[in-house]
Amino acid sequence: MSKNDSKYISKAVIRRLPRYFRYLRDLLSNDIMRISSKELSERMNVTASQIRQDLNCFGGFGQQGYGYNVKSLYSEISKILGVDKGYKAVIIGVGNLGKALINTPMFEKRGVKLSGLFDVDCDLIGKSFGQLTVMNTDDMETFCRENDISIAILTLPKTEVYDTAIRLASAGVKGFWNFSNAELSLPDYPDVIIENVHLGDSLMALCYEIANA
Amino acid sequence: MSKNDSKYISKAVIRRLPRYFRYLRDLLSNDIMRISSKELSERMNVTASQIRQDLNCFGGFGQQGYGYNVKSLYSEISKILGVDKGYKAVIIGVGNLGKALINTPMFEKRGVKLSGLFDVDCDLIGKSFGQLTVMNTDDMETFCRENDISIAILTLPKTEVYDTAIRLASAGVKGFWNFSNAELSLPDYPDVIIENVHLGDSLMALCYEIANA
Repeated sequence: MSKNDSKYISKAVIRRLPRYFRYLRDLLSNDIMRISSKELSERMNVTASQIRQDLNCFGGFGQQGYGYNVKSLYSEISKILGVDKGYKAVIIGVGNLGKALINTPMFEKRGVKLSGLFDVDCDLIGKSFGQLTVMNTDDMETFCRENDISIAILTLPKTEVYDTAIRLASAGVKGFWNFSNAELSLPDYPDVIIENVHLGDSLMALCYEIANA
Repeated sequence: MSKNDSKYISKAVIRRLPRYFRYLRDLLSNDIMRISSKELSERMNVTASQIRQDLNCFGGFGQQGYGYNVKSLYSEISKILGVDKGYKAVIIGVGNLGKALINTPMFEKRGVKLSGLFDVDCDLIGKSFGQLTVMNTDDMETFCRENDISIAILTLPKTEVYDTAIRLASAGVKGFWNFSNAELSLPDYPDVIIENVHLGDSLMALCYEIANA
């Protein structure tokens, strides 16, 4: 397999792609159709050589003396990131964090369709948020199977995360976006992808920087 | 300056330290006082050589044939991360995300004292959440100055972030934990630290992994 094959993009580059995605989207919304690696590097505060190196990883869309075609670069990065797949997601746990996520345009912008909300709380079940109504977690497996749900967003208490994830993985959920502070792993489902969000790690990085400024 | 000087720890290592911090805290709470790099590597799913390399960066507390003393390693990493500084923080914007953050034990565990809540919404001002009462954002500069606030957590709309941050920086706030999707930068305050949390980037990384599983 060649280095240009998407399977071979390093994890570090992949982690940077969403940032390119955001910057390119901003450029497009400002009708900027062409950009040099130098300009992009100034905006993004990374070196131009880093940008050229990163973007070369998946083919390289830059042209000497012309720069990058913003639209095609954006569309290529979107494709690599799976934006065109139209993954469907459910939120499990409609507490404050769950509610905060429901209200963001984040999903739509990234091609993810928020398709269901689940909670155990009787006071919440039946309540509507935007277009969606909170369902009973008892029904989540059936719902996920019938609606081809790929992503479960876990905004429920740490103690509930593992059992809930096992149930959802057995119902065909392919990826978990886990906001509980538990480090989720599912050894019995090696193909399932888990993105553990540790907000506390980001807070610690900030504290470190302040302490060492 | 030697490589062991904390100022010279690479950014990549710093980004991994909060994870060590979490794992070591779990070990301590399970009364595990000693661990080899091999055991730690199995738990954390990184190579033992990576662990030795990382921990050597700031002195190396391992002892051949004994492993690491969990307590002293935890305390050393805590110190490096600024946990002992007792930074005080305020939340600006008490919407769903702000409320979700108020209720986590995240701050206390990391030595950060949540000291004030601010919002513009008259219906929220005066309301109490735990020990804290929501104040009017008009008063935030005075409060931050008088209470030696180091960190402002920005959970307010994107459009308000820049102006709010400028006001807070001028009131002595040293670091911003920015949850709005805006890429905050404050060129007039070069010493101020900004941690932009882009939750969408994490969602994209998940989608990529699912698409390429």
